Amino acid sequence: MTDPANFVSAKALRTKEQPISYLMEQAVANPDIISLAAGLVDYDTLPVEETRRVMEELLSDAWAAQRALQYGTTEGFVELREQLLARYRPEGVPLSVDNVVVSSGSQQLLHLTAEALIDPDDIVLLSAPSYFVFMGTLQSTGARMIGIPMDEDGMRPDLLRTKLSELDKTGQLDRVKLVYLVTYFQNPTGISLHPSRRKEIFDIVREFQAKRHIFILEDAAYRELRYTGEDTAPVKSYDTDNDTVIYLGTFSKPYSPGMKTGFGFLPESLVTPMCQIKGSHDFGTNNFIQHVLARVMKTGLLDEHLEIVRREYIRKSAIMYDALRQHLPESAHFRKPSGGLYIWVELPPEVETGPGSALVKAALDHGVLYVPGEYCYPTESEVKKNQMRLTFGVGTVEQLSEGVKRLGEAVRAVMSGIPV
Amino acid sequence: MTDPANFVSAKALRTKEQPISYLMEQAVANPDIISLAAGLVDYDTLPVEETRRVMEELLSDAWAAQRALQYGTTEGFVELREQLLARYRPEGVPLSVDNVVVSSGSQQLLHLTAEALIDPDDIVLLSAPSYFVFMGTLQSTGARMIGIPMDEDGMRPDLLRTKLSELDKTGQLDRVKLVYLVTYFQNPTGISLHPSRRKEIFDIVREFQAKRHIFILEDAAYRELRYTGEDTAPVKSYDTDNDTVIYLGTFSKPYSPGMKTGFGFLPESLVTPMCQIKGSHDFGTNNFIQHVLARVMKTGLLDEHLEIVRREYIRKSAIMYDALRQHLPESAHFRKPSGGLYIWVELPPEVETGPGSALVKAALDHGVLYVPGEYCYPTESEVKKNQMRLTFGVGTVEQLSEGVKRLGEAVRAVMSGIPV
Repeated sequence: MTDPANFVSAKALRTKEQPISYLMEQAVANPDIISLAAGLVDYDTLPVEETRRVMEELLSDAWAAQRALQYGTTEGFVELREQLLARYRPEGVPLSVDNVVVSSGSQQLLHLTAEALIDPDDIVLLSAPSYFVFMGTLQSTGARMIGIPMDEDGMRPDLLRTKLSELDKTGQLDRVKLVYLVTYFQNPTGISLHPSRRKEIFDIVREFQAKRHIFILEDAAYRELRYTGEDTAPVKSYDTDNDTVIYLGTFSKPYSPGMKTGFGFLPESLVTPMCQIKGSHDFGTNNFIQHVLARVMKTGLLDEHLEIVRREYIRKSAIMYDALRQHLPESAHFRKPSGGLYIWVELPPEVETGPGSALVKAALDHGVLYVPGEYCYPTESEVKKNQMRLTFGVGTVEQLSEGVKRLGEAVRAVMSGIPV
Repeated sequence: MTDPANFVSAKALRTKEQPISYLMEQAVANPDIISLAAGLVDYDTLPVEETRRVMEELLSDAWAAQRALQYGTTEGFVELREQLLARYRPEGVPLSVDNVVVSSGSQQLLHLTAEALIDPDDIVLLSAPSYFVFMGTLQSTGARMIGIPMDEDGMRPDLLRTKLSELDKTGQLDRVKLVYLVTYFQNPTGISLHPSRRKEIFDIVREFQAKRHIFILEDAAYRELRYTGEDTAPVKSYDTDNDTVIYLGTFSKPYSPGMKTGFGFLPESLVTPMCQIKGSHDFGTNNFIQHVLARVMKTGLLDEHLEIVRREYIRKSAIMYDALRQHLPESAHFRKPSGGLYIWVELPPEVETGPGSALVKAALDHGVLYVPGEYCYPTESEVKKNQMRLTFGVGTVEQLSEGVKRLGEAVRAVMSGIPV
């Protein structure tokens, strides 16, 4: 075989396999392993019946069906975009249907945002830890990724300001393109950005915009997976000029990831550049599924379905949380999830979780898989090596209980062997 | 609004609106216009009933439906990839399911190929004329596009060899990455690459591979839309090392463009680079639709449906051809389509068809739209200015007849005003 390095592009050379792939292969090779790592969703609550009803309706109307089976437009099906606007548009933000773009999952919009803004050595600021798949996408664009530490209320605004000032002083501010925030029940920590900090971070970015037009990329993938309390206003709600925040959502978590449909509310200035790039990618997302999802929204099935989904995740998150309390040593820290799909576990500092660590090996030996926390840290940030991401998304109740029990055994085995 | 030029990437700056967009807007603004330009497919033969049957089957099997509604993999649904391999694998080419990738339409694979191989100023050789949407994608990567003239048997191998030798002599061969061929019923001309030339072009590329690893991108989008004779072997059939030809196909023309699903048979050396890039785009194409299409293939519905589609296009292509014979002056040249969706018309040299021409204006005045031929020429090629692409894809029989009549009137109006 010819060595690809001889002919591929600079972008291909920068694009790497996800580090988590190795662990996934272990799971496939050994079907007895329980994965608390895979970011899939719950099988039993996938909307089979809801989809059947909508399909029947759509496909028994020949004209509606033909329109759905025909080519669509790059921006997406206008009725779906109207529904999305009606549901998610923050009051006071000047958004029209022209600012709404439907994408192949929100991942495609993460990619398009990076592609539209980033040249090699441009800078993206992310909370540390952050969503590792997006970091892979950023790496492929050649971006520098600088981590801003977070606490239990999300990214720390004071440290964001310090970092921006420092970049300004060292003449690097003009390379800063983006601040990336997962504002609701963040992947991987489950932490939401506190409402007061949403405004604070927005204001800081606006302040520096006098010198450099920085965007905020607000990833709201988990917004609908809220298990306590009321919905909160996104960062986008402060963007009253529609000039700063790219807001992303998805049907993958609230409805079906197999339908691979996400959407963005784009700042006015990015509509043309991002749609032109999307045009060259695929000139539009799966039109048939957009017609299906427009009906799912219009008929109220999305809300009906969300109740079922939330109820099940509340149950499963409680089971995982209780199992962790039972099986992990008291020195481990973690919190009861109030939304999303993840529990972030911090072990004592001496218990490393990363690739090559005693724990990653012990966990595989015990038949359980987790995501090492260090995969979730931007390249330029202080990395904690004693953390892990667990998910209660896809596992059954039995698998979650048994998986956490195995993890507890692995942790205890490693800790008993560690000289303290 | 902030000027995007202040912050977008080099790629965004290179990515332009399709030149055809202006014409499309005219059509939208004036609903009485008949478009012989839009590359849509026939409405009436879209597979409503076939899709209804498959959906019913899939969604009444809870476990199968849940698997379809869950996340898929980056490469695509393995059962669909197996079906594609069984149907399209050329004998003697070492392809396994690992070489098959499912994409968001074949357009996504055109984009991924460009992205994986092209850096700015790399060279792509294309027939002149060629598929204009792909040229837009290439422009966004910064590629140089060199046109190789074609005759009624497709790209001329002798001129390809001359061009490659010239590039070699001038030290530019190491920038050549790709030769792009639409081998069946090419968009825009409807011409197929003659079977003997498929081997000839393959051999020429192999010859130059001693100095430089050049790939062939074989776009077989229209292969299934054959109206006379037997299927022919693709260029891929000569690629017995699976090291040279990227072969692309799609469900958009033979089944439904709304389902936005294409596929590629990738050379061994490109599987990893292209899948890693696809991973960063979307980590996999719409999984639900892939499960649907696997059933469409398995149950034989694709072949059943193709008979209906072919019959209708044979009818519509004959109507357009006859109307052109009736309404265009005898000095116009065009051929009866043997497949695909297009008729390529060449007018007398003095009748220009491009933007700003008297004819483009007369056609709009008469209420008909065509694609100016010059949009279909690579940037580095001799451009003929008296050609146009017409399609019989989406129009009804009445629209095709009336549209061609209007076109004939516009042509005659312009010709009578031209000093000869």
